[in-house]
Amino acid sequence: MPRTSEPGRSVSSRLLDLLFSFGPGEVELSLADLARKTGLPHPTARRLVLELVSAGALEKRANGRFAVGLRLWQLGTLAPLTESLRTMAQPVMEDLYAALHQHVQLAVLEGTEAVIIERLSARRALGLVSQVGGRLPLHCSGVGKVLLSHGGSVLTNKILESGLRRYTPRTITDPGVLRRELADCRRTGSALVDGELTKGADSIATRVMNYEGRVVAALSVVVRSGSVQRQAVLPSVIASGLGISRMLGWRPGIKARNG
Amino acid sequence: MPRTSEPGRSVSSRLLDLLFSFGPGEVELSLADLARKTGLPHPTARRLVLELVSAGALEKRANGRFAVGLRLWQLGTLAPLTESLRTMAQPVMEDLYAALHQHVQLAVLEGTEAVIIERLSARRALGLVSQVGGRLPLHCSGVGKVLLSHGGSVLTNKILESGLRRYTPRTITDPGVLRRELADCRRTGSALVDGELTKGADSIATRVMNYEGRVVAALSVVVRSGSVQRQAVLPSVIASGLGISRMLGWRPGIKARNG
Repeated sequence: MPRTSEPGRSVSSRLLDLLFSFGPGEVELSLADLARKTGLPHPTARRLVLELVSAGALEKRANGRFAVGLRLWQLGTLAPLTESLRTMAQPVMEDLYAALHQHVQLAVLEGTEAVIIERLSARRALGLVSQVGGRLPLHCSGVGKVLLSHGGSVLTNKILESGLRRYTPRTITDPGVLRRELADCRRTGSALVDGELTKGADSIATRVMNYEGRVVAALSVVVRSGSVQRQAVLPSVIASGLGISRMLGWRPGIKARNG
Repeated sequence: MPRTSEPGRSVSSRLLDLLFSFGPGEVELSLADLARKTGLPHPTARRLVLELVSAGALEKRANGRFAVGLRLWQLGTLAPLTESLRTMAQPVMEDLYAALHQHVQLAVLEGTEAVIIERLSARRALGLVSQVGGRLPLHCSGVGKVLLSHGGSVLTNKILESGLRRYTPRTITDPGVLRRELADCRRTGSALVDGELTKGADSIATRVMNYEGRVVAALSVVVRSGSVQRQAVLPSVIASGLGISRMLGWRPGIKARNG
């Protein structure tokens, strides 16, 4: 979210705007792109970008464009929730993957979207657009529905008021229908998504809770529509979600609550 | 590497110093820690840290300390080499893991260390200190030796001149012995490490090459010493390394060259 150039804008906010100009579809940017996206004068953008390169936060590619540097990637791996959740969830996700040979994803809530923090992919399974670090909408992805249903009424209202974007003919765009689904999901802890985000892709998702029962993440398996009976996959996904929850200190009897 | 407070120090370098104060052993820092590590006056540190928090680069934890934020983590996932290598290597690493049920690691060279960019861990396998984003020394880890042997003579001299730190009684600290091992590794593409970094842990490592034959990464399997015959594991590790190399455009006949 770049701000336009204003006189009182601090150097630090300019620097952060430059960094956050990069995104999933914009992994490489030229100096001109960066100046345009941040609204900074070209010489200022150039000076700050070179500082970011010399610190290892950005790197200059062979084609002269800039990209996020390895040192910034390393810094990112220190994000506490992400790192501890990923480390703990990984063996469980591997076992689930070994049992099903389907995509397995772990996501957390950030703002009004779900962010994928870990993913195991079958080489021959369904092609997925999402990748680690990528974002999914809350109203029509499996992990999104699980996180939204445990995100509190303020978040739900915000999502409903912003309008439910239609991704496929199956996307639920009726607020009343979505509210009923979310109530079910809050009760059962799981969500089944039937081609609502990507045509031909189903998702079976469940919640991950911590020692207080707070829903801190959602785990899902994504399968080609019709390739697997969703009801047959669900128990293994639920068991895996509970397995990760136990590692976070959850025990049977601790009631799920909003994250 | 914090710099001390100097008058001409730019705001951007202060901000980067704050960010890079976090490290593998220092995932959470208090405001006082951050001021001390960067040499910034407390009020300046506070103002900049709050800017970083409001941008999502840092987050304030429940205990009042600060940590790397989810948004910075996401930004890091955009680092090009890391992301493309990880995505391509993951299925091969999963297959290797399925075959061996031992830790599988992928690392790249950064400066004078190896950085682990992907790792699959067996739940019941050997406990490892390293984790994704973590660093390993070049002279006594499996991936490190592979990367060092393909890192050019300037790097080798630098590592030898800086002194070969002894981690275990088995660490090679004699420059002549290490040079001979590196020459072997350059020839075969593989390295066997025998408790040289961690007592009781062996590593079997091999190179990953791109379409030009440049060694861009190293793949390793880490096993409990004596649990597996290293010579029995080596062929599968080599085959997996070549498999990832093929995905990067390497073909038999393309000679390995320094990365």
